[in-house]
Amino acid sequence: MKIDFSTLAAMREKRPLVHAITNFVTANFCADVLLAAGASPMMADSPQEAADAAKCADALYLNIGTLNQNSLEAMCRAGKTAKEHRIPIVFDPVGAGATPLRQTASAKIIREIHPDIVKGNLAEMLFLAGIDGITGRGVDAGEIDLKQNLIVDGLRRFASKHQLIAIATGKVDFITDGTATAVIYNGCPMLENVTGTGCALGAFCAACAVQKETLFASQFSAVLAMGVAGEIARETLPGGNCCGTFKMKLLDAIGNLTDRDLQIRGKYEFLA
Amino acid sequence: MKIDFSTLAAMREKRPLVHAITNFVTANFCADVLLAAGASPMMADSPQEAADAAKCADALYLNIGTLNQNSLEAMCRAGKTAKEHRIPIVFDPVGAGATPLRQTASAKIIREIHPDIVKGNLAEMLFLAGIDGITGRGVDAGEIDLKQNLIVDGLRRFASKHQLIAIATGKVDFITDGTATAVIYNGCPMLENVTGTGCALGAFCAACAVQKETLFASQFSAVLAMGVAGEIARETLPGGNCCGTFKMKLLDAIGNLTDRDLQIRGKYEFLA
Amino acid sequence: MKIDFSTLAAMREKRPLVHAITNFVTANFCADVLLAAGASPMMADSPQEAADAAKCADALYLNIGTLNQNSLEAMCRAGKTAKEHRIPIVFDPVGAGATPLRQTASAKIIREIHPDIVKGNLAEMLFLAGIDGITGRGVDAGEIDLKQNLIVDGLRRFASKHQLIAIATGKVDFITDGTATAVIYNGCPMLENVTGTGCALGAFCAACAVQKETLFASQFSAVLAMGVAGEIARETLPGGNCCGTFKMKLLDAIGNLTDRDLQIRGKYEFLA
Repeated sequence: MKIDFSTLAAMREKRPLVHAITNFVTANFCADVLLAAGASPMMADSPQEAADAAKCADALYLNIGTLNQNSLEAMCRAGKTAKEHRIPIVFDPVGAGATPLRQTASAKIIREIHPDIVKGNLAEMLFLAGIDGITGRGVDAGEIDLKQNLIVDGLRRFASKHQLIAIATGKVDFITDGTATAVIYNGCPMLENVTGTGCALGAFCAACAVQKETLFASQFSAVLAMGVAGEIARETLPGGNCCGTFKMKLLDAIGNLTDRDLQIRGKYEFLA
Repeated sequence: MKIDFSTLAAMREKRPLVHAITNFVTANFCADVLLAAGASPMMADSPQEAADAAKCADALYLNIGTLNQNSLEAMCRAGKTAKEHRIPIVFDPVGAGATPLRQTASAKIIREIHPDIVKGNLAEMLFLAGIDGITGRGVDAGEIDLKQNLIVDGLRRFASKHQLIAIATGKVDFITDGTATAVIYNGCPMLENVTGTGCALGAFCAACAVQKETLFASQFSAVLAMGVAGEIARETLPGGNCCGTFKMKLLDAIGNLTDRDLQIRGKYEFLA
Repeated sequence: MKIDFSTLAAMREKRPLVHAITNFVTANFCADVLLAAGASPMMADSPQEAADAAKCADALYLNIGTLNQNSLEAMCRAGKTAKEHRIPIVFDPVGAGATPLRQTASAKIIREIHPDIVKGNLAEMLFLAGIDGITGRGVDAGEIDLKQNLIVDGLRRFASKHQLIAIATGKVDFITDGTATAVIYNGCPMLENVTGTGCALGAFCAACAVQKETLFASQFSAVLAMGVAGEIARETLPGGNCCGTFKMKLLDAIGNLTDRDLQIRGKYEFLA
């Protein structure tokens, strides 16, 4: 597959307004990542204005990290409005399998809102794909090698069934629309040692999703961008587990990242 | 107009307790800015205790960034109590014109609570002043030059009508009590590339508002302080769009800022 | 008392999942501290899933910083479930005496949930112990010297009465289970100039509480760790009130801290 590295420049050109209905734990970091990347955040999460806010937005990001009845109602109203206005929707099923509330909410959002993109970590995406039995708690690199075929098959079926792009992140990242499938090997372990890098990636995917004509390529670039930014940030560290410095340098890296960086540093393959 | 640069020292001397009912996206940064500046934050936002909390405070800050029915109720109860106890109130009408919910809430807060200060970005303040028709989406420096008279007239009428101090921030900042009017030219574009600098300024305005005898001068200094701190922070950066480092250095700059810095670095004029 | 410095290593070995029902102001920093320290955060705060989430956790952290009816209900449900499953519970009574809502909620949580540990600042703990009359607003070091006996007696009675470990933080930190009592002299004033260090310590205490057999020693190490990390972070600063840099360096220090650091740098005594 030929990738035309132009997502970041095109997104910055448009400066998309991303309506995020998300958890309160990482909302600040998501907003900082959107601003650093060249997009704008809007985080109206009341059911009373969620639909009005969605109408003004260029993309919608839904995240169930601190789900409750009000925020689920807000997500449904914003999602319905976004769909009517052909605004792209990214759904981030945080902890999808962890509690009955999240299981029900995830199923409802996928069924009723039809997000264009579902991005979760590997455990969450395998749960949604109905194949979480293949991994235990924690999936290490060795297991992934052995089970990559099962994972890719499951994600492809999930993507095809619901006609969306499925993104599963971890030591290796998977992106598939049911047919085209990319595997990305960039990133660094420090990305899991600070809060909100997953949520921020989801919000960033929404910002990049404004390129509707080349949605798969835009999502491929978004995931690649977070991995490459993590590597750049880590290279500036003196060593040790410097989570505070890493988080700051990650924002710096995202603000300075170019499509050319992705082209040069990208480590990925497309599966047949 | 003669400015007696003493706001920061007097505020730190008092170490005011600022009760902030604000959005969850930037609450952490607001609290950090208050602490760095020498004030103390309290962020009780439940309707059940908003009035009790306001009673203990030296100033009240209301922000509708993630407004909902509960927080609006909390703001009204806290505002009423603050008014009874002559505690100064700053209102930050985030996204005032963006949705019907925010339009209604902003009008209600101004009409029923009578804040002493309303601080928003230029678009929000022009909406409240009823003259948002004079700008399009985004107001660049050129437009401001041409339209400065219209803006100042509108803000002055709004301030006079509601007997408050109106603050509109942007590339240029305006402060008026309906008669005295200051224009501030400090600041740097990076301030708009990180989340929460506007909200933090609002909370900081509340901390400085404890100098009730010289309210206009205190607000002038507060706005000037954020601009100067932004310039100091930017001067430490290596270049590029280093949002993470800038945010950290901005907190450092606020913590170390003195009235003397404002006197030396201030770029402003008072309009006749 | 002989301290076996092994808490940090044992906690990291287990990588405990800490369920935190906490305020939205410092949730992000708490999560960052848990991750940096080697634990995992989960912050489900809806009453609809609080019990389900608690079941999966290794420890529960309850914080009333931005208390409301929903979060109190969530805390009670999670607390009851945690107790049934013998999951250790840390309660952080933020602003315990400040409003009637917090007074009632604190009493209810202690009476009905029976937390294993209650950690507050000195003012909050003295209020809960019913001896807040002995201090005025702000307790300085001189007063503490004079009143240390009264404080320790009050905390011991409170700990014995409710059969829990009481932790009171300030310029000096007190830890007692009613019999064994430690006083810690580590820390630095900058810890009070950034938001969330108290909440983060509470979450960290929960992570360390998974060592149920040596609960007092684990809490002693947790409190010592925050003080020592603060000192290490401060030593890297250029001088001045650099709150932003300090907060970042504090996360770095927590990520790199070892039991050996506590052993070498610890300044403490055990009271008879």
